[in-house]
Amino acid sequence: MTLHETFTRNEAGLAAVLPLLKQRFGDRMQTGTSIREQHGHTTTWLANQIPDAVVFATSTADVAETVTLCAEHRVPVIPFGTGTSLEGQVNAPAGGISLDLSLMSRVLKVHAEDLDAVVQPGVTRKQLNEHLRDQGLFFPIDPGADASLGGMAATRASGTNAVRYGTMKDNVLALEAVLADGTVIRTGSRAKKSSAGYDLTRLLVGSEGTLGVITELTLRLHGIPEAMASARVSFDRVEDACQTVILAVQVGLPMARMELLDALTVQAVNAYSKLDLPETPVLLLEFHGTEAGVKEQAEMFGEIARDCGGRDFTWTGRAEERSRLWQARHDAYWATTALRPGARGLSTDVCVPISRLADCVGEATAKAAAEGLLAPVVGHVGDGNFHMLLLVDDTVPGERAQAEAFVGWLNDLALSMEGTCTGEHGIGQGKRKYLRREIGPALGPMAAIKAALDPQNILNPGKILPPEG
Amino acid sequence: MTLHETFTRNEAGLAAVLPLLKQRFGDRMQTGTSIREQHGHTTTWLANQIPDAVVFATSTADVAETVTLCAEHRVPVIPFGTGTSLEGQVNAPAGGISLDLSLMSRVLKVHAEDLDAVVQPGVTRKQLNEHLRDQGLFFPIDPGADASLGGMAATRASGTNAVRYGTMKDNVLALEAVLADGTVIRTGSRAKKSSAGYDLTRLLVGSEGTLGVITELTLRLHGIPEAMASARVSFDRVEDACQTVILAVQVGLPMARMELLDALTVQAVNAYSKLDLPETPVLLLEFHGTEAGVKEQAEMFGEIARDCGGRDFTWTGRAEERSRLWQARHDAYWATTALRPGARGLSTDVCVPISRLADCVGEATAKAAAEGLLAPVVGHVGDGNFHMLLLVDDTVPGERAQAEAFVGWLNDLALSMEGTCTGEHGIGQGKRKYLRREIGPALGPMAAIKAALDPQNILNPGKILPPEG
Repeated sequence: MTLHETFTRNEAGLAAVLPLLKQRFGDRMQTGTSIREQHGHTTTWLANQIPDAVVFATSTADVAETVTLCAEHRVPVIPFGTGTSLEGQVNAPAGGISLDLSLMSRVLKVHAEDLDAVVQPGVTRKQLNEHLRDQGLFFPIDPGADASLGGMAATRASGTNAVRYGTMKDNVLALEAVLADGTVIRTGSRAKKSSAGYDLTRLLVGSEGTLGVITELTLRLHGIPEAMASARVSFDRVEDACQTVILAVQVGLPMARMELLDALTVQAVNAYSKLDLPETPVLLLEFHGTEAGVKEQAEMFGEIARDCGGRDFTWTGRAEERSRLWQARHDAYWATTALRPGARGLSTDVCVPISRLADCVGEATAKAAAEGLLAPVVGHVGDGNFHMLLLVDDTVPGERAQAEAFVGWLNDLALSMEGTCTGEHGIGQGKRKYLRREIGPALGPMAAIKAALDPQNILNPGKILPPEG
Repeated sequence: MTLHETFTRNEAGLAAVLPLLKQRFGDRMQTGTSIREQHGHTTTWLANQIPDAVVFATSTADVAETVTLCAEHRVPVIPFGTGTSLEGQVNAPAGGISLDLSLMSRVLKVHAEDLDAVVQPGVTRKQLNEHLRDQGLFFPIDPGADASLGGMAATRASGTNAVRYGTMKDNVLALEAVLADGTVIRTGSRAKKSSAGYDLTRLLVGSEGTLGVITELTLRLHGIPEAMASARVSFDRVEDACQTVILAVQVGLPMARMELLDALTVQAVNAYSKLDLPETPVLLLEFHGTEAGVKEQAEMFGEIARDCGGRDFTWTGRAEERSRLWQARHDAYWATTALRPGARGLSTDVCVPISRLADCVGEATAKAAAEGLLAPVVGHVGDGNFHMLLLVDDTVPGERAQAEAFVGWLNDLALSMEGTCTGEHGIGQGKRKYLRREIGPALGPMAAIKAALDPQNILNPGKILPPEG
């Protein structure tokens, strides 16, 4: 099997398909430079690679027609939601058509009794939650950005409360998708569970647009909890924070969020937000349940934390105080990037078994310090997933290469600890070489599936699967 | 693409491969009639189709060698765990080799801090839970039978507490598997979440041995809850029981089990187990949590049930009384089959959105009664999944055909309610024709994946994918 890894542009195909798309879509097909740049803008350290045109779909039929035309002319199709992915997923290395789904933004149906909703792929998570609020329901996945739900499914998004509610993999019941030949399929029903054949839903979730274009999602909803509480506790050492989390998970405390900030991040937040937190690692927690339940959870957590050396444990159930407790986390990204004006952040995404998290964070921060790299850490500690934000100044010779070497070293460290190079950001372009190291022979079936479902390699080429050799 | 749907036996291939397997495996390769019959015994109404030989693997290398030899000679390989599947998954319609994995029965590693375990595929769920007990951990999936964990993954097993803990799809972190060409792959790591490429774990879970042979599993474990409580409540109507469950789910009560028995099942259990339950629909509940938490859950559930017309609500946290409350459920299978001595049970498995469950059960029981079919119902009501056990006497002319027509009607009814023909038993042989009706165009990518990963169709042929045409 071949991955068709060639970034030669198909100029003849492009020349043929562009007028056909213009004829079909009129103003909803755009070739202006700024709009194309926006659709090939990676938001990260990866170079932008812009598409030849952007088609704004308003229906599944639009998507099917675009894909069919592009298939006939062997032209790449790159699905686009809000463009907030972090690993170059919207780049167009061989040119082609960016298929923008943001106009497909209707919540089609909410089934409150069944705790599910059917939405178009351009609906964003905040839009859905706004729509649901009156019904006492919410959709829990929160990757930070107000991303589109189609994009979140395509990249298997996760975020701060995955420890309680799972990731997109766990919260998508069924999908409608357009395959590489223009066929429209449905991968499941509204039933809460199914054993009806291969799990195409989970195959498409996380496939980053390389196997199909998601045109509709049936999502699992959750009741807004009766009560929420937030807590904060400081530790002298990352190890003690991790041990607290391990014990709390083992006794079955159903924490909704558990976020770790390292000492450097706390220093940054203190400076940025005028706080006076102890400049040591800190854990931020959120509990969901009944009034009595969250009180019990918070108090039990506090006991465990104190036994593990936690200091200044504080918790509250009051809404206004909850956001104050969590302010350090909300401000972390801007506070840490402000540590080094002019630098750009390069985010790592390793995820390891939680018993190895303290070792992994410890080794990584020690190495970064030894190398003179400024690299604050925030972690979804309940999942064993953490991000180091390497603050890199591209104008300093060699620094970019040093940072990339560090990322490779950290990814290998995570693999040696039975972890993964990516907990939630995906492979995209940036991590393709690490995927080979991580899964080895399993690349075979992945490439075989890609070749079977997209034999011309027109769906988001150059993503996930590494080039051969 | 072709499904290679042909049940012509490859006599030349079989003649060539049998002596090679004998040479390689000696006494661990068996061709005696009784052992072959046991490995092609479906335990259900489906006809048995026995393999030509049984190979007892003791290692991944054994599995890889068997598959490689069979691939060279184009001979089918049918993976076998405990043989407790219900849809003919272990049948050998074209003959071939039953690959028995029951001797691969070691718990390789328990990582208590990470809440995971690495096991061989022949480990049964009871064996694993016995092994874990001292560490305060358990593996929650309980399909009834003491099935092998490899088989449970292959068939995406579920059962009574899926409503709280999910199905096998949610509790397998990673797999090792042997592909159709003998390649050994690993589909993931011990990290709790990953975005590293296509989700091969979820693709193999539920693939019923048609895409690979599972040789090792990394499973997610859970802490044994501090406290458990059980409850029982009777209703005049199935609708009221369903409404209770809908409201309890909406307010976020984390019930661990919610089982429904219909009036006919309760009558059967009263007769069989000398109980005196009101002969109306009954709900049985289980709650997991802290001492205070389960008390709160049980009491809240009781209030909701009473508001919905529930009667005789009773709950207990005491272990000895808990099993008494649940006795009706434990005895349900034997009690209902005893309703008609000499009859065989044909189990349905539809799953619908919970808002449609009362309608679905109501229409099904009304039709069964009108047709004179004896068909008691037990339901995993929190998931919208229920089983009717059609008690069929094969010696009565036309009755078997009548029952099969009823099953087809019920499957179509579930589809019309946005449900599925199978919540947990899988497709196997028995439901292949319904899979086509259920997923339509999505059969295309399923068949393409099968053809890509098993081009000779040697892995459990004749399962899941319907014949062409």
